Amino acid sequence: MGIQDYLESKNERLDRQLLFTAEIDRMTDILRQTMLISGKRRENDAEHSWHIAVMAMLLTEYAAEPVDIGRVVRMCVVHDLVEIEAGDTFAYDTQGNIGKAERERIAADKLFSRLPEDQGSMIRGLWEEFDAMETPDAKYAACVDRLQPFLHNVLTDGHTWRSGKVARASVEKRISVIREFMPEVYRWMEANIEQAVENGWLSP
Amino acid sequence: MGIQDYLESKNERLDRQLLFTAEIDRMTDILRQTMLISGKRRENDAEHSWHIAVMAMLLTEYAAEPVDIGRVVRMCVVHDLVEIEAGDTFAYDTQGNIGKAERERIAADKLFSRLPEDQGSMIRGLWEEFDAMETPDAKYAACVDRLQPFLHNVLTDGHTWRSGKVARASVEKRISVIREFMPEVYRWMEANIEQAVENGWLSP
Repeated sequence: MGIQDYLESKNERLDRQLLFTAEIDRMTDILRQTMLISGKRRENDAEHSWHIAVMAMLLTEYAAEPVDIGRVVRMCVVHDLVEIEAGDTFAYDTQGNIGKAERERIAADKLFSRLPEDQGSMIRGLWEEFDAMETPDAKYAACVDRLQPFLHNVLTDGHTWRSGKVARASVEKRISVIREFMPEVYRWMEANIEQAVENGWLSP
Repeated sequence: MGIQDYLESKNERLDRQLLFTAEIDRMTDILRQTMLISGKRRENDAEHSWHIAVMAMLLTEYAAEPVDIGRVVRMCVVHDLVEIEAGDTFAYDTQGNIGKAERERIAADKLFSRLPEDQGSMIRGLWEEFDAMETPDAKYAACVDRLQPFLHNVLTDGHTWRSGKVARASVEKRISVIREFMPEVYRWMEANIEQAVENGWLSP
């Protein structure tokens, strides 16, 4: 029997919600470049989304402006859903990032149209807000989204920096939102960047 | 170098928050009995916690009482953290569930004491509220926590029910909170239980 055979609740709206729920389980199959801190394997999108959601709950005191943590956590858990259709693009892959915005827009059209319209718009709205990095909630969510793989890199001997031959300046550019929005956390990162260059994990 | 060597931000509070963040990455290593919907492998606690958080965002309309979705999502992402210390106990393992509450209380003491006190209390409070299933937010979070593996079972030919030789009455008991708090969703589940018994996935 196929997935559809089980979704006959006589409520088409509920059927769509359950089907969407089943489909997004594919996030467990989208691998990122980041290693788990154990070093055992690469992290997947479901794990990453969960991890930054919990981090967000712990670091609000460092945000430069007040944030609505309930909204931020919701943003965190949906911010990578489009990768189910578009795949993950390594942050430091210049070539791969060409056309990423357009690819993800098409992916979002496809993915979110499966939900009831009001809910597709709601999740799409959170994703677009996250991506635009203009509101305090989105800036803060973007900060934890960048801090998490930084922490993983630091704790796995710079694994992804080394394998991607990443330069210090690229990392600094990527985390500039943290310099702006979480300056105290940025100071900790700065010291670790120095150390990473010294260790040969990042090119100078 | 060990994890501690990277956590010298000159702010002991931030150090503890980062160390806790690094430690909870072990949730990716705590396997549940539930299979991923793809059937490829067992699901881990990080994936499960993420999945129910997104589900919770989609199904509020079926809740018998209004819920604060921002709180529910936070509850979802932290509700299984104690399993880092206590391990996962299969819901239908009668023997294994003896002493579970006490094991988890000890695990919580150990785990949450690593955070700054206010944050340890905050997360512990959410976990205890979830576990008590008394408030609307906790009942709703408990519903999605039970609906998600049900959906996975239905879509993997009753994998975990079959391997655990689970009886229909045990499932009905486990999901009774859904009967109470999400009656329309329960009707869909009831029909699927009938089908599962007919398929031989659940014992009658």
